[in-house]
Amino acid sequence: MASIAPLSFNPTFLTTHFSKLQNNNCYSYASCYPRGLNNRRCNFCIVMVRGRRSSSRRSVDLVNGKKVNGVHVEAPVFSGEKRGSLLVEESGAIEGEKPLHDCLLGRFVEDKFVYGQTFIIRSYEIGPDKTATMETLMNLLQETALNHVTCSGLAGNDFGATREMSLRKLIWVVTRVHVQVQRYSCWGDVVEIDTWVDAAGKNGMRRDWIIRDYHTREVITRATSTWVIMNKETRRLSKIPDQVREELTPFYLNRIAIPTDQNDSEKIDKLTDKTAERIRSGLAPRWNDMDANQHVNNVKYIGWILESVPITVLEDFDLTSMTLEYRRECRQSNLVESLTSTTTTATGDLSKNLHYTHLLRMQPNKDEIVRARTQWNSKPKQYFTN
Amino acid sequence: MASIAPLSFNPTFLTTHFSKLQNNNCYSYASCYPRGLNNRRCNFCIVMVRGRRSSSRRSVDLVNGKKVNGVHVEAPVFSGEKRGSLLVEESGAIEGEKPLHDCLLGRFVEDKFVYGQTFIIRSYEIGPDKTATMETLMNLLQETALNHVTCSGLAGNDFGATREMSLRKLIWVVTRVHVQVQRYSCWGDVVEIDTWVDAAGKNGMRRDWIIRDYHTREVITRATSTWVIMNKETRRLSKIPDQVREELTPFYLNRIAIPTDQNDSEKIDKLTDKTAERIRSGLAPRWNDMDANQHVNNVKYIGWILESVPITVLEDFDLTSMTLEYRRECRQSNLVESLTSTTTTATGDLSKNLHYTHLLRMQPNKDEIVRARTQWNSKPKQYFTN
Repeated sequence: MASIAPLSFNPTFLTTHFSKLQNNNCYSYASCYPRGLNNRRCNFCIVMVRGRRSSSRRSVDLVNGKKVNGVHVEAPVFSGEKRGSLLVEESGAIEGEKPLHDCLLGRFVEDKFVYGQTFIIRSYEIGPDKTATMETLMNLLQETALNHVTCSGLAGNDFGATREMSLRKLIWVVTRVHVQVQRYSCWGDVVEIDTWVDAAGKNGMRRDWIIRDYHTREVITRATSTWVIMNKETRRLSKIPDQVREELTPFYLNRIAIPTDQNDSEKIDKLTDKTAERIRSGLAPRWNDMDANQHVNNVKYIGWILESVPITVLEDFDLTSMTLEYRRECRQSNLVESLTSTTTTATGDLSKNLHYTHLLRMQPNKDEIVRARTQWNSKPKQYFTN
Repeated sequence: MASIAPLSFNPTFLTTHFSKLQNNNCYSYASCYPRGLNNRRCNFCIVMVRGRRSSSRRSVDLVNGKKVNGVHVEAPVFSGEKRGSLLVEESGAIEGEKPLHDCLLGRFVEDKFVYGQTFIIRSYEIGPDKTATMETLMNLLQETALNHVTCSGLAGNDFGATREMSLRKLIWVVTRVHVQVQRYSCWGDVVEIDTWVDAAGKNGMRRDWIIRDYHTREVITRATSTWVIMNKETRRLSKIPDQVREELTPFYLNRIAIPTDQNDSEKIDKLTDKTAERIRSGLAPRWNDMDANQHVNNVKYIGWILESVPITVLEDFDLTSMTLEYRRECRQSNLVESLTSTTTTATGDLSKNLHYTHLLRMQPNKDEIVRARTQWNSKPKQYFTN
């Protein structure tokens, strides 16, 4: 368990290029290049809710350094705060930039409990079937989660970690992700992603997401993930320290994106040379697959998993459900194998619904990296009216 | 020349999943799935300039179907118009959504001549050195260019093509791109991209871009590209038909992003087995490298080029200049080789500035895909203040 991979929340990400500048007991950030043009003194992160279409959500002001909604949020101690304060000045949002801030970074909705961000599906985020790829969805989920942490005022100096975590050299690592896609968006579609967190047992955290079509409000994707805390130096798992729990608890929301009876919480079988129907060897990380911590970005794993799925399935079916169990980090020097097999316990119309089990493993010693389970539905026929 | 690769502006991209719905001489779009929830009648694309910080640009209204600024822009004939009308209703912008439209799709500035869009560098758009990658920049340039065409009201039913082009089955193909990066942005930095087009000789078009740091207004990247027209069925190059020229000319702006004496317009030498210092073979396109036309997305070429660059260079140097000469399309079944060599004619301090020539070619028959030239500057030292 001590080798579970961080979900691109990189332990050392911000430690070197953001700097703590102490001025009159306030803190600011330095640009990652020595130009100093972006330096500011005493940034405060001010987040106010914005009116949303078809929404009955309550409004809220969340101001760093003031007790709001029962949460005392200090002025940033670590310079990782930079992002939350990018579009605000010392005394508040720059005039006219509030909508831009909301669009680029998102905003709190439903008091402090839910964080939302609106995205347009860009031209380069679609795949061969002309819709957003699963990688695109996972990237957008990650982006919303990180902006949630940043704008909560809790961010420490590691990707997604809180300040009390960073003080203790603790980082989040994801152990499991489950995504259910009802419909993939097309190029130019606008989607709205909501995310929130809750406790997961005694020493875990659950993060859920809902993706809606911006115009129809239809829920098109649901996702849930489980996180534990790891010491980034010893790489050992840790209990959640009381101080960290105190930071997190006010944000916990007892709500689930995926109803329990529809969730995929079963263990994923381990594929072997004997049980795998297809093995794709020789997958080598490219330089650009690496994240800031010299690990393979976890979203890249999806691409490798797909490499052992039959191409006719990739062409004619939609990936409607995916569960990933992260087991081990992968670095650039590692050569990887992708294994896929039909899930034997699957039921239903197997011509329209396919069920697969997958394994990514190190090629030389067969150490597991990720186990996965996917479901695929045959694509709906295209819609012609002319 | 007839085999030059489209810059991800895919010939058949919109032909199947957007449909022309004729209602009272107006046209709309259909969702890419047969749900019909997004269907609208009579969409008009209304684009108005928005106040910008530190900008003395003139304001302009551009309304489809009306003659504005000397340009008569018809109501969309092809349903590829969908994107421009996503956030506007029949009678104008949905109340409160104008800033969202501007943020997600961009807006015209300086009358109709320049199109601008603001982006935040997202968590998954940075590389191992914690700054935006060259791929990220190229993706954002492509996105801005496509939104420019969409919001101009000229878009046909292929990626970036005009209506008169689509009527003649013509598409744009990029022959050359040159990018100069003064500084790479960090995670959370906000950048503003401006783009415009001009004639390039008798039968070409030039598209330029400027990327500025949103807060400092510093120009951090300049780019220029050359485009020609190809018949998507015969794959032969075509002259620009008069009707297409009439569409384009009102948008031409006689301005260059890169001064002529700083541009890289020299031919790139062809590397061979004999002249290449490093050859990386066995590069296989992944399923997700494919675009909607089953070609390798041209931005992916950059990743392959980097595969034959020494890792110490990738780690310790910034890619400050890149020129790509596109020669041939690449499909999923193709196995690719990446060749790199030090440019022998380079001058200057070679410990701080590196110059390389590259070639991507088909592995079996050595057919050229892309020639490239890159320059690298040693990274500035990190900035510590605590």
